[in-house]
Amino acid sequence: MRNVSIIGIGQTKVAEHWDRSLRHLAGDAVLAAIQDAGIETADALYVGNMLSGLLTGQEHLAALIADFVGLRGIEAVKIEAACGSGAAALRLGYASVAGGLHDVVIVCGVEKMTDTVNAETTTGLAMAADADYESIHGLTFVSINALLMRRYMHEYGVEHEDFSGFPVNAHRNAVHNANAMFRRPITAEQFARARMIADPINLLDSSGIGDGAAAVVLCPTSRAREYGDGRAVRIKASSMATDAVAVHDRPDPLWLSAAEASAVKAYKQAGVGPRDMDLFELHDAFTVMAALSLEAAGFAERGKGVWLAQNGEIAPEGRIPVSTAGGLKARGHPVGATGIYQIVEVAQQLRGEAGENQIPNARLGMAQNIGGSGATAVTHILEAAV
Amino acid sequence: MRNVSIIGIGQTKVAEHWDRSLRHLAGDAVLAAIQDAGIETADALYVGNMLSGLLTGQEHLAALIADFVGLRGIEAVKIEAACGSGAAALRLGYASVAGGLHDVVIVCGVEKMTDTVNAETTTGLAMAADADYESIHGLTFVSINALLMRRYMHEYGVEHEDFSGFPVNAHRNAVHNANAMFRRPITAEQFARARMIADPINLLDSSGIGDGAAAVVLCPTSRAREYGDGRAVRIKASSMATDAVAVHDRPDPLWLSAAEASAVKAYKQAGVGPRDMDLFELHDAFTVMAALSLEAAGFAERGKGVWLAQNGEIAPEGRIPVSTAGGLKARGHPVGATGIYQIVEVAQQLRGEAGENQIPNARLGMAQNIGGSGATAVTHILEAAV
Repeated sequence: MRNVSIIGIGQTKVAEHWDRSLRHLAGDAVLAAIQDAGIETADALYVGNMLSGLLTGQEHLAALIADFVGLRGIEAVKIEAACGSGAAALRLGYASVAGGLHDVVIVCGVEKMTDTVNAETTTGLAMAADADYESIHGLTFVSINALLMRRYMHEYGVEHEDFSGFPVNAHRNAVHNANAMFRRPITAEQFARARMIADPINLLDSSGIGDGAAAVVLCPTSRAREYGDGRAVRIKASSMATDAVAVHDRPDPLWLSAAEASAVKAYKQAGVGPRDMDLFELHDAFTVMAALSLEAAGFAERGKGVWLAQNGEIAPEGRIPVSTAGGLKARGHPVGATGIYQIVEVAQQLRGEAGENQIPNARLGMAQNIGGSGATAVTHILEAAV
Repeated sequence: MRNVSIIGIGQTKVAEHWDRSLRHLAGDAVLAAIQDAGIETADALYVGNMLSGLLTGQEHLAALIADFVGLRGIEAVKIEAACGSGAAALRLGYASVAGGLHDVVIVCGVEKMTDTVNAETTTGLAMAADADYESIHGLTFVSINALLMRRYMHEYGVEHEDFSGFPVNAHRNAVHNANAMFRRPITAEQFARARMIADPINLLDSSGIGDGAAAVVLCPTSRAREYGDGRAVRIKASSMATDAVAVHDRPDPLWLSAAEASAVKAYKQAGVGPRDMDLFELHDAFTVMAALSLEAAGFAERGKGVWLAQNGEIAPEGRIPVSTAGGLKARGHPVGATGIYQIVEVAQQLRGEAGENQIPNARLGMAQNIGGSGATAVTHILEAAV
């Protein structure tokens, strides 16, 4: 299979875009990525999205966006894997270029979660859980994560205040990200006092929903030099794994086996390990998910993920910087778009374009996008151009 | 790229399965395909589905199904391209095997359209159209097709009764298909008298919605002999194209340019033409769509598709048999599953397992799955094992 590189990136600000529909948001991100790559056309468009049908009454989304950005006629499909939809779309785009089906592919993640038409966003997010065995009993997506967090605290003797390291880091990093939704720093004291959402998850444990889109352009690495003036970032590994959707079906609810399996496959493909990473864009939809991700991906021992954050090791100057542009927590979490935001942010770091948030000499970065409460995990490892 | 073969097929009956959820339907089809192929496991599951979110409150569908069929952990994503979702999923499954990403991939199309929870199926189907510029004005999916049919009749001087050849053929063929929804033959007189739905489309112009699932197992042709005792069917071509989603955005509403582009690409890849086909499973969601498909795919001249049906050339003994197992019209049209039903039915013909509907010596068959009123078209050409 061919090596694949990212030759263009684009994104919109994550916000409540009441005046922008799905096609406008996706269009902004895709056109920015096209311009960044310096391409004229593409062979295919893969769109990661979870909620367009329920919330805005629009399926058939990929053909719609392809037409809107001036690429009428090209192959275009939407890919859904709950909150992991964005990276799942990238994975299929990667496969089509690596395998030789296509030469130039655009992957876009887009979600519109505010100013919706048909249903509440909370109802939409619950579709990431098992409709017949979880949601039907009244579990929302936040409450499922609350059960996980409570269990984490119980099993590992952790207090709620011990989770503050994640949002404090994310908000501090988002200050310098013009595309982030929440650009104000927060303190551990503010975290402790934040309004309760679903005990023990409070407002500052939770990522914010929002509208947004991000996009990347892929081509074979052998052709990447033709575009993007040497800033192309190589996809060194791409992997995906799944788990039971319902948390109660998992033998160990506190172990994200899909995240582990996906990370292990990615490390093997790239020939690297967690210690080689200069940054890790993890799926901090909730603080407990950030802790579990660090553990499953091999950055912390079981039950110790939360201390990595409390000890400052996830800070930009720490051992393994996470949420370097604000993460899901502070950049915002437009669910189907998040996986591509993560990739765009890793690419910015590896291109040395992360501004105030730049990790010095970042050469290798990982992104892990999680669907549901861990039933889908998609991992990508990116490497700076040499 | 590697040649790819279909080594296993499975399907459920299309019906109002009030006692079967999405996972049960998909499970039945996938397990049947696994058994038919004689495989123990698979690398990935790609699921074609359009409406699970809106109608049943379940996204994250692919991970759910993978777990339910005993394949917890494997890569699994849902692919959506409106009514073309099934074949779009096959296209990505094909790409992943052809390109070397995976060796054994299961592709399942599934849809549950009756006994739904959240919304009416008519609302769901309208999501295949442009939400902001078509559906918002009250257009349903049937009424968009009614506009096309009226225009067809006007432009080409065709009467409504001239469309009877399509449903008469489809219903006659469905009599022998145990998985079909409507197994009674109909006459041209019954067609003429059928209840009006959206003038000029009447009940017998329209395919029936239903619940159902179909599945195939793919592997490299070089390994196909290890499985399926020599009945493997080769995917000789796979292609996809798109068009404007809104009909009013197309320069010529009566020409399915995506269907044409997709067919032309497939013919080129396979090195064959329409005259080489022993059968063509087309997308007869409405009679006018069947006529337009025959024209776009090169089986009839512009405006003449309807006469191919009236002259009996689409019958099993005709020049180009279509809807050999009942088509969307009489087998039923569980939208996201339809593209895989078409493939299963072509495979049955090429394996010589089509029973009473067998086309003698069928060696080469084509399936074209259309999304929306033509904005997505996915074409596959299959060849019998040599």
